[in-house]
Amino acid sequence: GDPKIYYTFWKNVDDKCKVTIKASDLMSYFADFDEGGVFYQLPEFSEAVHQVHRVVGNAVTEGRYIIGGTGSSQLFSVALRALASTCYEEALEEEKSEIFKWQGDANTFDEEGPYIEVVTTPNNPDGRLREPVVKKEGGMVICDLAYYWPQYTPITAPADYDVMLFTLSKATGHAGSRVGWAIVKDKEIAMRMIKLMLLVTIGTCHEGQLRAAKILEFVANSYEHLANGKLSKGNPEVIEQPLEKFFEFSHRMLAERWTRLRAAIKRCGAFNLPEYFPQYCKFMNKTSHPNPAYAWMELKTGEDAEKLMNELKIRARAGPKFGVSSKYIRVSMLESDDTFNQFLDRLSTLE
Amino acid sequence: GDPKIYYTFWKNVDDKCKVTIKASDLMSYFADFDEGGVFYQLPEFSEAVHQVHRVVGNAVTEGRYIIGGTGSSQLFSVALRALASTCYEEALEEEKSEIFKWQGDANTFDEEGPYIEVVTTPNNPDGRLREPVVKKEGGMVICDLAYYWPQYTPITAPADYDVMLFTLSKATGHAGSRVGWAIVKDKEIAMRMIKLMLLVTIGTCHEGQLRAAKILEFVANSYEHLANGKLSKGNPEVIEQPLEKFFEFSHRMLAERWTRLRAAIKRCGAFNLPEYFPQYCKFMNKTSHPNPAYAWMELKTGEDAEKLMNELKIRARAGPKFGVSSKYIRVSMLESDDTFNQFLDRLSTLE
Repeated sequence: GDPKIYYTFWKNVDDKCKVTIKASDLMSYFADFDEGGVFYQLPEFSEAVHQVHRVVGNAVTEGRYIIGGTGSSQLFSVALRALASTCYEEALEEEKSEIFKWQGDANTFDEEGPYIEVVTTPNNPDGRLREPVVKKEGGMVICDLAYYWPQYTPITAPADYDVMLFTLSKATGHAGSRVGWAIVKDKEIAMRMIKLMLLVTIGTCHEGQLRAAKILEFVANSYEHLANGKLSKGNPEVIEQPLEKFFEFSHRMLAERWTRLRAAIKRCGAFNLPEYFPQYCKFMNKTSHPNPAYAWMELKTGEDAEKLMNELKIRARAGPKFGVSSKYIRVSMLESDDTFNQFLDRLSTLE
Repeated sequence: GDPKIYYTFWKNVDDKCKVTIKASDLMSYFADFDEGGVFYQLPEFSEAVHQVHRVVGNAVTEGRYIIGGTGSSQLFSVALRALASTCYEEALEEEKSEIFKWQGDANTFDEEGPYIEVVTTPNNPDGRLREPVVKKEGGMVICDLAYYWPQYTPITAPADYDVMLFTLSKATGHAGSRVGWAIVKDKEIAMRMIKLMLLVTIGTCHEGQLRAAKILEFVANSYEHLANGKLSKGNPEVIEQPLEKFFEFSHRMLAERWTRLRAAIKRCGAFNLPEYFPQYCKFMNKTSHPNPAYAWMELKTGEDAEKLMNELKIRARAGPKFGVSSKYIRVSMLESDDTFNQFLDRLSTLE
């Protein structure tokens, strides 16, 4: 789903958080000349990623490699290949080689030998927290943490896996930038991923990195200026902060939508929604309720939830696309206000 | 090679050709809602690509599909797959399937059945103009035209192939943007490529597209305002044009470097350089000499050109990487002034 829910927040700070790129800026293939750096990556991008995770506390980044990609989809493919193979010669050669094989559900995996487990937490589509389940020797974990941000779920501890994937799309709503990043524990795997990024697209768009750095730094600064006492030390009037900070805004928006959705589902009576239980969020310093990015709806009677959604003209993704029954349907909670209101209006015709 | 040769041109127009991106700009996955449009592509990007090719006359774009990619490397891979297969289900599935097979030199290809011929013209590394050679039924041509711009070679006619690839890196020197584009003749192939771009990276970075649109439009406008008489109709003082326009600047820079290189090679006596012959350039409206982006140097005596370059501390790419003898070596003509001057200085130690 297009994460338009955050648009009004960013519209309010349009000029406070803008980037200007001059004709001769960002021309080189190279952006980082440090040894051990990612050649195509702006140092301010790497720094902003470190900063936002430090502030939010949702992932360990200390001593880890930050590797930017064109969305997390590219990084997922690159991480899989880097974990699966130790040697690459040519991008074209790879496309033809069978270096890994999809084995299906991790819960039923019982083969010997090296494996890669892919975990998405909070999970898509059902919003549940997940952990690796295989836990054998020779295993590596790729963890998709696209939704592990305070607006979607309580932050209980910093995530700490071999390869962790994040994307700006779900973090702040800037989907058009196609900016994702991997946090990688092992140096050799990081180096392989960087080499693959060179082969596949010679890195990523520098303008997108610059924009992402600005956005992430803006979000992180709004908390860090309070946390480290800068507000009281300096001149508090000078530091312009939005009235409501990003994660408070986004959490409030999603919580309001979930309250309205649960009421609408109750009135209409045709669906079940999963129950989510509150936990203590270390970022918000209080108990907080999960607000998943998707409504994972189960039809109570009848078998074809997609057909019903089509009749109601509600855009949704059917259960079979996630390997489950056609009684299930996924609807995005991140669309624009207009689209979300239409969704509730159309549900109400079932009452 | 990093195309830093164009840096001083862009530095001079830094403020005339800048982009400003506000916090709420370019947030959606979608940028073009027209039927038949490329969903992730800013209409101003597509328009700027059409405009610059119309002005330069180096490729037919009328009635063709313009498909942006993360550099031309991504588009090459996507075009190969789109031409080779008619049906894709999942990005992951593709990575594992052998849908095309590299057959080597087109000059010796004599198999029956469908084929894809890849042509690079002007060629890398030797700068020569090429044409498809197989010319059988059931064949498709992907033409890499990265260097088919007036600074490198006379523009003799608009190129007109099934799939044509261009990249901002070599056109204007903005390599960090990772912006390339394909010009595609057939609608069905274009639709397959767009679908693949969705699967691989959900399109490309919108900030990079915006920047590329600005740069390409700036270049095209500097010619079109003269061509269509806008300067004489309006108020000529208002339209700020650079003193020397982009292709005149870049052609002059490269021509000067080639003159200096030929003199240095003559003095040092250790290498042969290819001869290039002037042709009438329809863009410049005069006979013009090719100035390839690479010096393709052949060692006169001795077998290991790479070893000699290493001794001279000249960064170069050896012949075997292009499938030819180690007597050959490729040196970039597009580096910064400092790097190019060092290259000539180090060559002069052989005198």
